[in-house]
Amino acid sequence: MFKINANYLKLPGSYLFSDIAKRVKAFTEENPDKKIIRLGIGDVTLPLAPAVIEALHRATDEMGVKETFKGYSPDLGYEFLRTAIAENDYKTRGVTIAVDEIFISDGAKSDSGNIGDIFDIDNKIAVCDPVYPVYVDSNAMAGRTGEYLPALGKWSNVIYMPCTEETDFAPELPGEEPDIIYLCFPNNPTGSTIKKAELQKWVDYANKTGAVIIYDAAYEAYISEEDVPHSIYECEGAKTCAIELRSFSKNAGFTGTRLAFTVIPKELKSGEVMLNSLWARRHGTKFNGAPYIVQKAGAAVYTQEGRKQTGEQIAYYMNNAKIIREGLTAAGYDVSGGVNAPYIWLKTPGKMTSWEFFDYLLREANVVGTPGSGFGPHGEGYFRLTAFGTYENTLEAIERIKKL
Amino acid sequence: MFKINANYLKLPGSYLFSDIAKRVKAFTEENPDKKIIRLGIGDVTLPLAPAVIEALHRATDEMGVKETFKGYSPDLGYEFLRTAIAENDYKTRGVTIAVDEIFISDGAKSDSGNIGDIFDIDNKIAVCDPVYPVYVDSNAMAGRTGEYLPALGKWSNVIYMPCTEETDFAPELPGEEPDIIYLCFPNNPTGSTIKKAELQKWVDYANKTGAVIIYDAAYEAYISEEDVPHSIYECEGAKTCAIELRSFSKNAGFTGTRLAFTVIPKELKSGEVMLNSLWARRHGTKFNGAPYIVQKAGAAVYTQEGRKQTGEQIAYYMNNAKIIREGLTAAGYDVSGGVNAPYIWLKTPGKMTSWEFFDYLLREANVVGTPGSGFGPHGEGYFRLTAFGTYENTLEAIERIKKL
Repeated sequence: MFKINANYLKLPGSYLFSDIAKRVKAFTEENPDKKIIRLGIGDVTLPLAPAVIEALHRATDEMGVKETFKGYSPDLGYEFLRTAIAENDYKTRGVTIAVDEIFISDGAKSDSGNIGDIFDIDNKIAVCDPVYPVYVDSNAMAGRTGEYLPALGKWSNVIYMPCTEETDFAPELPGEEPDIIYLCFPNNPTGSTIKKAELQKWVDYANKTGAVIIYDAAYEAYISEEDVPHSIYECEGAKTCAIELRSFSKNAGFTGTRLAFTVIPKELKSGEVMLNSLWARRHGTKFNGAPYIVQKAGAAVYTQEGRKQTGEQIAYYMNNAKIIREGLTAAGYDVSGGVNAPYIWLKTPGKMTSWEFFDYLLREANVVGTPGSGFGPHGEGYFRLTAFGTYENTLEAIERIKKL
Repeated sequence: MFKINANYLKLPGSYLFSDIAKRVKAFTEENPDKKIIRLGIGDVTLPLAPAVIEALHRATDEMGVKETFKGYSPDLGYEFLRTAIAENDYKTRGVTIAVDEIFISDGAKSDSGNIGDIFDIDNKIAVCDPVYPVYVDSNAMAGRTGEYLPALGKWSNVIYMPCTEETDFAPELPGEEPDIIYLCFPNNPTGSTIKKAELQKWVDYANKTGAVIIYDAAYEAYISEEDVPHSIYECEGAKTCAIELRSFSKNAGFTGTRLAFTVIPKELKSGEVMLNSLWARRHGTKFNGAPYIVQKAGAAVYTQEGRKQTGEQIAYYMNNAKIIREGLTAAGYDVSGGVNAPYIWLKTPGKMTSWEFFDYLLREANVVGTPGSGFGPHGEGYFRLTAFGTYENTLEAIERIKKL
């Protein structure tokens, strides 16, 4: 008689964005005349850059001709892409990453969900609170998080690191020593970042305590300020304690095209065992590569044209972020984020809960955002807006909110 | 101090196809003048069908325009593709599968590797011997297979079901009751199939004992004989005991394009819990959809043109299979498979081991195949050739082998 993974049954209800979708649907049905503006989910809206489109067409043509057709890709991904990554994302920042330390994948959600596979169940994780739900949920599925405590909105065996106004939306070194530390900078959902000297403290802490850091840098392209690290490997000693996750979703609009990569330096070991080898084995056993045409599209992001065009997209979204940030500040809201990240994090006014403010904003301004409490208990009383809408909609949404 | 998943350390050495690549490389370096013909790995060689190429171009154009750009895809995949699957792969065979019982993914290797996530560690698996290595390795990584016994080439806690000449290359119902049964028909590596009445016995057995069947039907498009089931759901009662895996890799040449799907009927339950819900949760948490353009390409396979063109590709490969089968039979080899599958399974002559025959064939005919022992202990003494080469190469390879 087969038995299911009972850890799945411990997961609380439905996913945050399903709840949002349901409430929006109900509102729309009752108010079919209202024009809803969605600044909720972190999904891009600009079309793929011309250089990327061109690369897709060219690669598609290659797939249609016997002489240039491509079957299974190399396990780690095509070398043309891994070389472009090593050169452009790392070497330019003074970081040496070998091509066999880079693993091409179909998305950072897959990578952040699957990376737990190479670790023992008996590891205690530490996460920021609020946090991107995938880190916690994937560990819960593996049985690493203890029991869910609905009254607290927490798991019994997870170290939560509050990121609130009091901590400047950055985590502090935890009192209890974790084995695996999830960090995401620029942060989803708060839009906060930390300076290099601050990140160095985490690297030193991990090296000292023997912890591993899973560093999610999916939003690094949005960094505008000096001294904010784009890669954790800019910190000394990071190669012996950190795995870095990167994505093409937000820097090049690949949310529907799917491409990402994970870096695991060979210096990162448990005893004599390289985590690089474990992930290579996982990759080779349970994954068969990202599509050739998509890897070609990814390589196009690193061309001169590609960099220019995707840079313009980021500037477009960051202009939206500025509109939101400045508009809400002018309207008296307490706002953070939006400078090095496409997310704006605001305090709900008048002690409203996150969901109360969600309903208020939907009802009164017909604007959809994301309740902070959906990202963890310390997200309560906060609200996330994203800069990924169109310029026109963003402007209109902020005008509507200002009038409330 | 973080701890790694020690199950990974139990996995035996390197992957079969890496070993083969090394031997071929060494031979090529010593014999640079020899023309090697590769009939080893099951990778396609024909370019994508024109209808698929057209769909990729069209979808790429959509991604380049704001009005038609697509971000994140729906969790389960686009409905246009799931509807096409339900209609064409199931309804035409008298099987009703709802669109929300179909989960689009990036490949059958991912699905067969990841499906174990929704099951408890404490489940005993049964596999055919020889077998596609991913079923066993992914369960070994999860800690479900006990210890590896190098002398036997087996895991201590796995039920192996020998598929040899004596059993007509089909498994027999196991003596010990498994919890999870992996079946693959048409079979990789042996190319064998079973009739509907035989498969019905497995369904009845699973329903009686409370086992779940993971049914890998990645090669169903190659079935040429009547009464060989294309889907396990053609058998009565399969919806309460079987998960089916399908792929676009072999029926439409998507090995480098990546698209597949898994079917989990809502009737398949553990107590009150639907496995469909568990997989939906897994899918939604650790995966973010297959690329829109690739899903569009997949849908093109089901159009009139797409069916015609991919049908011709299959016919091309199956003509290769015929050449191999008949050529080797004429040369005195003991051959099976190749009628409902692109794989030909032959007995090594003169009591050579699989690897001895590999070296012999490489040295004397400069032909690369796959040693049967690489798929499990009962593959010893057998050898796999694939029909995925070009017609010209296949013909030449068989001519060379005939002359040995």
